[in-house]
Amino acid sequence: MTITRPSGRAFDQLRAVSLEPNFAKYAEGSCLVRFGDTHVLCTASVDEKVPPFLRNSGKGWVTAEYGMLPRSTHTRTDREAAKGKQSGRTQEIQRLIGRSLRAVTDLKALGERQIKIDCDVLQADGGTRTAAITGSYVALHLALRKLVDTKLLTALPLTAEVAAISCGIYQGQAVLDLDYAEDSNAEADSNFVLTGRGGIVEVQGTAEADPFSEEQFLELMRLARKGVTQLVTLQRKAVMA
Amino acid sequence: MTITRPSGRAFDQLRAVSLEPNFAKYAEGSCLVRFGDTHVLCTASVDEKVPPFLRNSGKGWVTAEYGMLPRSTHTRTDREAAKGKQSGRTQEIQRLIGRSLRAVTDLKALGERQIKIDCDVLQADGGTRTAAITGSYVALHLALRKLVDTKLLTALPLTAEVAAISCGIYQGQAVLDLDYAEDSNAEADSNFVLTGRGGIVEVQGTAEADPFSEEQFLELMRLARKGVTQLVTLQRKAVMA
Amino acid sequence: MTITRPSGRAFDQLRAVSLEPNFAKYAEGSCLVRFGDTHVLCTASVDEKVPPFLRNSGKGWVTAEYGMLPRSTHTRTDREAAKGKQSGRTQEIQRLIGRSLRAVTDLKALGERQIKIDCDVLQADGGTRTAAITGSYVALHLALRKLVDTKLLTALPLTAEVAAISCGIYQGQAVLDLDYAEDSNAEADSNFVLTGRGGIVEVQGTAEADPFSEEQFLELMRLARKGVTQLVTLQRKAVMA
Amino acid sequence: MTITRPSGRAFDQLRAVSLEPNFAKYAEGSCLVRFGDTHVLCTASVDEKVPPFLRNSGKGWVTAEYGMLPRSTHTRTDREAAKGKQSGRTQEIQRLIGRSLRAVTDLKALGERQIKIDCDVLQADGGTRTAAITGSYVALHLALRKLVDTKLLTALPLTAEVAAISCGIYQGQAVLDLDYAEDSNAEADSNFVLTGRGGIVEVQGTAEADPFSEEQFLELMRLARKGVTQLVTLQRKAVMA
Amino acid sequence: MTITRPSGRAFDQLRAVSLEPNFAKYAEGSCLVRFGDTHVLCTASVDEKVPPFLRNSGKGWVTAEYGMLPRSTHTRTDREAAKGKQSGRTQEIQRLIGRSLRAVTDLKALGERQIKIDCDVLQADGGTRTAAITGSYVALHLALRKLVDTKLLTALPLTAEVAAISCGIYQGQAVLDLDYAEDSNAEADSNFVLTGRGGIVEVQGTAEADPFSEEQFLELMRLARKGVTQLVTLQRKAVMA
Amino acid sequence: MTITRPSGRAFDQLRAVSLEPNFAKYAEGSCLVRFGDTHVLCTASVDEKVPPFLRNSGKGWVTAEYGMLPRSTHTRTDREAAKGKQSGRTQEIQRLIGRSLRAVTDLKALGERQIKIDCDVLQADGGTRTAAITGSYVALHLALRKLVDTKLLTALPLTAEVAAISCGIYQGQAVLDLDYAEDSNAEADSNFVLTGRGGIVEVQGTAEADPFSEEQFLELMRLARKGVTQLVTLQRKAVMA
Repeated sequence: MTITRPSGRAFDQLRAVSLEPNFAKYAEGSCLVRFGDTHVLCTASVDEKVPPFLRNSGKGWVTAEYGMLPRSTHTRTDREAAKGKQSGRTQEIQRLIGRSLRAVTDLKALGERQIKIDCDVLQADGGTRTAAITGSYVALHLALRKLVDTKLLTALPLTAEVAAISCGIYQGQAVLDLDYAEDSNAEADSNFVLTGRGGIVEVQGTAEADPFSEEQFLELMRLARKGVTQLVTLQRKAVMA
Repeated sequence: MTITRPSGRAFDQLRAVSLEPNFAKYAEGSCLVRFGDTHVLCTASVDEKVPPFLRNSGKGWVTAEYGMLPRSTHTRTDREAAKGKQSGRTQEIQRLIGRSLRAVTDLKALGERQIKIDCDVLQADGGTRTAAITGSYVALHLALRKLVDTKLLTALPLTAEVAAISCGIYQGQAVLDLDYAEDSNAEADSNFVLTGRGGIVEVQGTAEADPFSEEQFLELMRLARKGVTQLVTLQRKAVMA
Repeated sequence: MTITRPSGRAFDQLRAVSLEPNFAKYAEGSCLVRFGDTHVLCTASVDEKVPPFLRNSGKGWVTAEYGMLPRSTHTRTDREAAKGKQSGRTQEIQRLIGRSLRAVTDLKALGERQIKIDCDVLQADGGTRTAAITGSYVALHLALRKLVDTKLLTALPLTAEVAAISCGIYQGQAVLDLDYAEDSNAEADSNFVLTGRGGIVEVQGTAEADPFSEEQFLELMRLARKGVTQLVTLQRKAVMA
Repeated sequence: MTITRPSGRAFDQLRAVSLEPNFAKYAEGSCLVRFGDTHVLCTASVDEKVPPFLRNSGKGWVTAEYGMLPRSTHTRTDREAAKGKQSGRTQEIQRLIGRSLRAVTDLKALGERQIKIDCDVLQADGGTRTAAITGSYVALHLALRKLVDTKLLTALPLTAEVAAISCGIYQGQAVLDLDYAEDSNAEADSNFVLTGRGGIVEVQGTAEADPFSEEQFLELMRLARKGVTQLVTLQRKAVMA
Repeated sequence: MTITRPSGRAFDQLRAVSLEPNFAKYAEGSCLVRFGDTHVLCTASVDEKVPPFLRNSGKGWVTAEYGMLPRSTHTRTDREAAKGKQSGRTQEIQRLIGRSLRAVTDLKALGERQIKIDCDVLQADGGTRTAAITGSYVALHLALRKLVDTKLLTALPLTAEVAAISCGIYQGQAVLDLDYAEDSNAEADSNFVLTGRGGIVEVQGTAEADPFSEEQFLELMRLARKGVTQLVTLQRKAVMA
Repeated sequence: MTITRPSGRAFDQLRAVSLEPNFAKYAEGSCLVRFGDTHVLCTASVDEKVPPFLRNSGKGWVTAEYGMLPRSTHTRTDREAAKGKQSGRTQEIQRLIGRSLRAVTDLKALGERQIKIDCDVLQADGGTRTAAITGSYVALHLALRKLVDTKLLTALPLTAEVAAISCGIYQGQAVLDLDYAEDSNAEADSNFVLTGRGGIVEVQGTAEADPFSEEQFLELMRLARKGVTQLVTLQRKAVMA
């Protein structure tokens, strides 16, 4: 394969990733995640109340909200608070983040409390939802550890790490971790949410132009596994900090 | 495998599917699709104007809206028009339907006009989004043929059929075309949007409880291919009617 | 009188009317009503909670919501859920349906529960509100009978049938049951909601162009009585089914 | 008849009615209308633009908006601007006012301009919608005369006066011009919008408890004619002022 | 100084001010305030419930809402209830009114009840917010006195009068009580909310074109004190009435 | 004076202030401003279109939007985009920022283009609006300089620097630059927006408990001048960077 990625990266190479834990002063848990020029601030807030459908169930909940600063993008995007509603894209992403984190949380062990995750994109260069999931896991972990430290929980109610990465087909080549230049020209675009143990939490693949084949899809999944393995290693370090 | 599905179907068996073309009197194209007790009315309306971002581009657009009648469900669901907004789920589904149809439409050949698809669920027993995509293809096809018949187009601007089906893991077994009883208890849930030629248009897989493995995922995809093949055969008949 | 109605009907002739009870699988009561090409799906849902203003009053409530599928109309109408609000026309109609049904319901005998009526127009060719009232009565009746059958009520809390029909002045002639072609050209338009015993529940008359006279109004009322008598006969059959 | 009305009025007696023209300093036409303790400020504003559906039609439009001050009522009513939407009742009333005024306006002669009527209830003691129609006619008339005075129109584009009054059945007796004490206890409630020449523009009758008979309805109409005759006399004086 | 104000007033002269107490029939307290052609109807409604954040605190609350009739202004302003939201300006003003009144109310002595102030501008010729504060004080005072008269309170929970006036720099000259003609051309605009004892409750000054100096600001404050002294005298008379 | 500020600062001492220019990669101008633990990201986006009221006026515009990340605060604040509207406080602040910047911008020299300022609070410890104004000036300056550098403007259309600071009365003492601990307990709170040349752009003072005196107010203004002088020095350095 001889294509050149706009960034010069190898086809199976992540962008420079950093996970900066405890970035926010007030949140119970937080992480500033950077996938290259994509920067997302993830915070986890503990709320001792659960949503109505869980009252008296003995179970807790993890939910997420997502937003982009208006000028996180190359050209300014209208502020959702000013428009008076969240776009379909925003809702899709925040539902995905919530499902991904709940998949590795033992909601029964969490008890009747809610963790509210906020993912705010400070700068967007593609892959904001996968960065958000990866950083949110760290924020969630840190917030839960605070509950353990203060004896509100006896053990971390987490069953695995969870991280996410995008892959796509760019100029006929499967590549890992699309940036904006690739994303806006990719033939196919997919997001994989995987656990630290290799389980699939969520898979989303979309053909942008022509449909793609099963072989192509499996190649994307292989790249994703490779990328997530590296992300999970960084998460483990970040939560130690 | 010895599990029994609530409906008594074999693990790889679709529900009774019917596609009733030209169900709506006024729409340029329409289809009432039934997947067992899931009934969705799909209409295609031709609008000679395109959205602003395509003006003077020479290209057309296909978009979709989705709704459920309040008592299409087992217990009544609040009316979105009365609540004043569409839920995140609704927006996610209508975006998926739109993308799926655009993936098989030659937007350049369509010319500067828009096809608006409406999918309204009259009765819901699981799998409404996959039924909606399958029925919408028929409605779209019929509306486009009317444009050919009236010489507004010289040929059908469609590159393939597109149909969709859900699969999931129910009591440890991969099964095809989940109904509500299965869907609400499945360990994993996935939707496959595939073309008549076997290409992948969209894949979505979600672990409800524990993460699932790549092998399980591939088994789901195999079932989906089988189901879609049957759906496409029915679509071909329906558009002949 | 020698005018010819677009449909060829006599001036005092209803369109072909059918009332198909139990059309919806899940609703406690339902009816698909057809007045010619106007088709409305009416469902009645039992809710064991009353609105706040009736709590601890010992009285129940009947309320209604109304909507049109976007392509029920000759040209597509924007979806109210997507626009984020119900039009004034929609609200006017659903308030009328609710008042009409409450007029024949013994709310005290109903007890502290609420019946929610949903009227969704699948196809619209004029007269959707009168069809909706006529069909909703059947849905309401069936839902209430289910409460009697399950011993939650000892007797049907209904004091009479209620049905509705439109009349108008078309090309100078009073005619019964306007279809869209007539309605959009009528000089006057009126809706009568009457009980099976001939009582007036609601009367609405509007001059579209010039004001009309008392004599004309009385002629419209006479036609309406005739029409409602036929509708009530059909309702009685439908609830027997 | 031996019932006593709460106000001590005869059954066919209006409340003290006054029409104070030019109450508002800036509006092209205005009238403060008082039906007893019901006070409505009606203004007419000339807008040289028509709504989109009338552009290049050569025709004008008359439209109306209605609102109640929060403490116009016996107990405070929530402010619609604060709630973020107009109630169904408000929309119903403002649509009625608009239709009533258009029924006596020659929209072609008005030319491509719009008259916007605002009816704001300063104090509410029943019958606000009929007072609003009666006062709005005066405001409209004055605004149109200003267009004639400034030579923008050659003649008043009005075909008749229009006024409105409520009637109802209170303790079994048909009575004219219900105040709040009667309205909230009436067995039937109706609003008649009639022209100065006796034509019917709009009729609305609603049974509050039991259905009412045709005879009762005709008795209400007779009272309404009597009341409107008096109102039109007052309107003629007011527009002379 | 030789500038001539559009109204011919002296630089330190208020417009003709009147405070008409008990203007509204139903409100517990009310006042129609007129600052020249600016007319605002202020009502005070007693609500025996406090907002959630004060429940079981033993303290009461005073809050305010503000609105303008659409044709209170020289040209028609869109109705906020129809637009579905209150403008930033409206919210700013109603927050200011609420804060100003709370500053002179002993919320502990008021007890767990809420006074809701409504300020509705019937006619606007500049200075609506200062007129509203001045009139609202009278409405509040009267409503509270009713609570004393009915023994719900033992003493008026007010610590001082509060009144407000605008001042500005017009053609280089500091002037008192700007009307619309001045306000829309002023170089600087300020609002002072002062107590009857001379304390500052709220100060707002804005440079419209060039920044202004501290000396200019102090001159504005001197004028404001003079104006408020006169307003408080009128308030004292009004609450005696 | 013997009070001790929670932070240990002298009564006339600012928090540690930093202005980090060009913090955002994509915006034409940007600045991360820190007033102690209050961190606000300010961006300036150039839009070559002006709002409708300025079309063909030859004049430009500067406008601002403001938002807080949900967990910028000590306890989580609901996301405005999710609630579907901006609070009154948010609107008040963004109007203030816009006015302040326009006061030092030569809108005619700017030409028909708009600068959109976004102020997003990453961390909030009191004084977010004054930090936002101070940082926005830097972002605006940098964006305008880019227009000069690319020859779209011949000179910077700025007439002075503008910066803002809060002052208040805390435990009876006038203090400069309130942090959250002081702000939530202050007897009076004020914000001063001043130019680099000492002119007053905007003054807002609010008594939280008892009214304050003119002497106190002048003392607050004196402190503000001192603080703004330091801020302007920092701004001058930041725009050099």
